Amino acid sequence: MSEVERVPIFRFTEVEKSSADDVVVTEFPLTIVFNNQELVTLLCSPKNLDYLAVGFLSSEGLLKSKDEIKNITVDEQRGVVRVETEAENKQAGELVFKRLITSGCGRGTSFYSAADVGGQRKVESQTKISALEVFELVSEFQHRSQIFRTTGGVHSAALCDTKSILVFSEDIGRHNAIDKIFGECTLKDIPTDDHILVTSGRISSEILLKAAKKNIPLLISKSAPTDLGVKLANDLGVTLIGFARGKRMNVYSNDWRVVSHG
Amino acid sequence: MSEVERVPIFRFTEVEKSSADDVVVTEFPLTIVFNNQELVTLLCSPKNLDYLAVGFLSSEGLLKSKDEIKNITVDEQRGVVRVETEAENKQAGELVFKRLITSGCGRGTSFYSAADVGGQRKVESQTKISALEVFELVSEFQHRSQIFRTTGGVHSAALCDTKSILVFSEDIGRHNAIDKIFGECTLKDIPTDDHILVTSGRISSEILLKAAKKNIPLLISKSAPTDLGVKLANDLGVTLIGFARGKRMNVYSNDWRVVSHG
Repeated sequence: MSEVERVPIFRFTEVEKSSADDVVVTEFPLTIVFNNQELVTLLCSPKNLDYLAVGFLSSEGLLKSKDEIKNITVDEQRGVVRVETEAENKQAGELVFKRLITSGCGRGTSFYSAADVGGQRKVESQTKISALEVFELVSEFQHRSQIFRTTGGVHSAALCDTKSILVFSEDIGRHNAIDKIFGECTLKDIPTDDHILVTSGRISSEILLKAAKKNIPLLISKSAPTDLGVKLANDLGVTLIGFARGKRMNVYSNDWRVVSHG
Repeated sequence: MSEVERVPIFRFTEVEKSSADDVVVTEFPLTIVFNNQELVTLLCSPKNLDYLAVGFLSSEGLLKSKDEIKNITVDEQRGVVRVETEAENKQAGELVFKRLITSGCGRGTSFYSAADVGGQRKVESQTKISALEVFELVSEFQHRSQIFRTTGGVHSAALCDTKSILVFSEDIGRHNAIDKIFGECTLKDIPTDDHILVTSGRISSEILLKAAKKNIPLLISKSAPTDLGVKLANDLGVTLIGFARGKRMNVYSNDWRVVSHG
């Protein structure tokens, strides 16, 4: 299935109306069924649907490692990914519902209770990176972002070491793009510890927490963070870098991981 | 409460590290309690919290008009808005949960069932607008976007007639910005029929449906639409305008409402 779609449009200027074709991104409803329980329907870009499903389950704490997975089936026609695990489904229906309401994109989180954030371990990784290495990663990241350049409506994410991009993804949703990364890492046994996450999107508290849960010490964005994102980054030991553009960047927390030279 | 926050940062270039202050947007967790039932916690900008709560309830179909509202209390300290209505709470707990899972920002919608979209009435409004009027509205819209210019992390929305902006809002979430508009319209008895909605954000299927539910015939964005947004716009009789920048725009559906001259 194509990630972009050609549609007929009319272009208007002050004095002219002309028909043309435009390319828009595909928005695909994907339903995730986990151990025969329909969990959620995500709106996503129709690529790497298995990564998205596994990454979503992993981010929500419903799946820890590849070994737990008994079976994954992707039905692209019907827009369904089914994931089955060896373990019994510990989550009762209501628990799953409650959990899902707390997920996603500014539409409700409950981790502001001290218990939830308090339960999150601080990231202790001693990984360091030079400013130059950040600029080079961001430059490579920008070059990889194909769909965005075509249609202007897609987010990208990448897992990197200090030298290069290891895993790259694109999706219409900034949460989905990151979950696709985590899903690929889960399925390919790529560790996220000591690694770097680059995202095209704003760094809100939810994105920050998502990274901290994966023990990621460095989070880089070309966009702005929120105050709560900065606060959590300080509390959870994450180095938060925003407005990374060209040869400039802002470091909002734990700047000891960024060295000026080297 | 301030919509922006000053935080200490380090600016890095290839060769320099200097301490500075940066302004980031505030991300505020707001819990909406509807008839003594805790519905959801939204992450939002801490302004016009009553508009956001009422708009959210309205968009979710839980509230039809101002007359139904018995009481609204805003507790800014604790981040809670309580809305009470005259009518009994028709929604059982589970129904509310199900509904909320279907809301918001790419994290699950269920309106793809034919029943849901089929139940949505087509927008029949005969409102027309000239290309020049669109360019002028968008220009006014850009000028009003204060927080965005300061911090680069906020969405705006506006309800307009063909000549000017009637209601304007900003929020870190594009859904929230639109819900704030609808909340203000509900509380001030401002009709949305025959009016125009301008948004800074991408037009996904969820945004399109949100507008169609309010019987809004024209939806304008400086950003891109998705293919599903365009499809729904065609099906539901909405004129969808994207990439409205300067003196150019793309019309994706129902172009008969846009006239070249006048």
